[in-house]
Amino acid sequence: MDQDERIAIVGAGLVGSGWSIVFARAGLPVRVFDASEPTREAFMATTEDSLAAMHRHGLIEDPQVIAARITVVPTLEEALDGATYVQESIVEQLEPKVVLAKAIGALLPDGAVVGSSTSGFPASAFTEQAPRRERFLVAHPVNPPHLVPVVEIVPAPWTDQDAVERTAALMAQVGQAPVRLRREIDGFILNRLQGALLDEAWRLYEEGYAGIADIDATVSQGLGLRWSFIGPFETIDLNAPGGIDDYAARLAPMYHRLAEQRGAPRPWSAEAVERAAGECRAARPAETLAARRAWRDERLMELAARRRQAETG
Amino acid sequence: MDQDERIAIVGAGLVGSGWSIVFARAGLPVRVFDASEPTREAFMATTEDSLAAMHRHGLIEDPQVIAARITVVPTLEEALDGATYVQESIVEQLEPKVVLAKAIGALLPDGAVVGSSTSGFPASAFTEQAPRRERFLVAHPVNPPHLVPVVEIVPAPWTDQDAVERTAALMAQVGQAPVRLRREIDGFILNRLQGALLDEAWRLYEEGYAGIADIDATVSQGLGLRWSFIGPFETIDLNAPGGIDDYAARLAPMYHRLAEQRGAPRPWSAEAVERAAGECRAARPAETLAARRAWRDERLMELAARRRQAETG
Repeated sequence: MDQDERIAIVGAGLVGSGWSIVFARAGLPVRVFDASEPTREAFMATTEDSLAAMHRHGLIEDPQVIAARITVVPTLEEALDGATYVQESIVEQLEPKVVLAKAIGALLPDGAVVGSSTSGFPASAFTEQAPRRERFLVAHPVNPPHLVPVVEIVPAPWTDQDAVERTAALMAQVGQAPVRLRREIDGFILNRLQGALLDEAWRLYEEGYAGIADIDATVSQGLGLRWSFIGPFETIDLNAPGGIDDYAARLAPMYHRLAEQRGAPRPWSAEAVERAAGECRAARPAETLAARRAWRDERLMELAARRRQAETG
Repeated sequence: MDQDERIAIVGAGLVGSGWSIVFARAGLPVRVFDASEPTREAFMATTEDSLAAMHRHGLIEDPQVIAARITVVPTLEEALDGATYVQESIVEQLEPKVVLAKAIGALLPDGAVVGSSTSGFPASAFTEQAPRRERFLVAHPVNPPHLVPVVEIVPAPWTDQDAVERTAALMAQVGQAPVRLRREIDGFILNRLQGALLDEAWRLYEEGYAGIADIDATVSQGLGLRWSFIGPFETIDLNAPGGIDDYAARLAPMYHRLAEQRGAPRPWSAEAVERAAGECRAARPAETLAARRAWRDERLMELAARRRQAETG
């Protein structure tokens, strides 16, 4: 671990809070800035709540030691002063990101890198006019980043290779799982894979093959179990005696037939979405959603704790 | 639990062995038949190995008590005598299933149901000429069924509704997770969802956006974590303040754009498969595949043990 890394977090919402935990947990000093004073004032309480929950699950030893590494500062200048890596996590809108990239680029210390948490915009869409644009890239986490390790690292056409390497190395050092894209694509990898599966799920639902809960159970009680520790390619690599090429020789024609049956892409139908919302609210009334989200995060923490055990023991 | 259930397993390979554990673990008597004498003779040793592994993971209390409920018999007649539910798990080829369905139908006790483990054929493809064809359906597990709960229940057009209800109730009683399809479709739900995700993964790989290990990590370190305990619809239902319809209002246009970019379905390219096999064998040499499969099953057992804890405690 390079103990000289100094982290700046710009944007102090839930994603920024998760990122501050990721870096501080790894022993690094973190400065946090947000343009909104109420957001800055709420930040440490939110972050300390998350740290307390992680402590209950045995994911960290001393919440106070970690919290002490995190400092909220009132200006962008103070956040960036001496920073070696900047994680931008502001609202998911293009124009504010364009403005902020210019401001960060003008203040960026030599050699530092700026990763954006954007889930939708390629870096080229908001860094073209920024000073030092070759030091910007996308570092897309899944929320919450302190519980889900994946980070998609996506360079713009003008991003330095060195910025990519440093970000991947930093993410690995702090315990995240960096995934490297060689060039930009809309939706990156994660949302493209999610979208492909969701589109097929909506199609099956809309055409009346099964209900929402049954389609969900097919994943949560089946497909998703292996995918929580081996990816889709390794899954098929292990599922034929001779490996992935043997699997393809046996089953690629079947999958191609299924793909042809899918037909042309079509939007999720408004009627299906409305029916699905009815099924979801019957299963989980609106007033229970917050509790269910808390339960989901508890399960993610248990999973993180067990994954850590499986890797170290 | 209906203690009068008596189970027949026809086809004594790995899938049949897993099924015998599912039913015997739940306290039911199981008779197992396979047309191959060597397969019959190897069956109990394989099954006892699985039971011993489950015992090590705390998934069962007494392997011998469970094994004692399983009897291998030398004829189909003996297997079916008095059976209330028959799970067919022979080789995945159509003609043998057609022949066997006729033989089973001719011997089937009144009121019994026959579920096929086929992953690819709809029940209508092999039961049309069978006696009592209204008692046949597909009950598709994921291998191994004693570690992965999902079972897709898919009726043929002529299947009795009562046969569907009884099978779903039986599967729930023995601790599986029955998923009900309202009518037949090629690939059922599970392989259609898997195929949609795999097709997009192959496309991203073939077009050079990322390597095999990086695409796998996007799932195993990200997408797959939530999907191991909540399905894709619940995932998006929890990911917008107002639920699934709110999520669709925000993000359906983005997913539709990604779908349109995918273009027409195309077969997995031979060149991409060959390159992928090279990457997989560099990461996991052929001689290590058996050990990796054993590791995968150990992880599935840990996951099953923890899921059981999470549900009961």
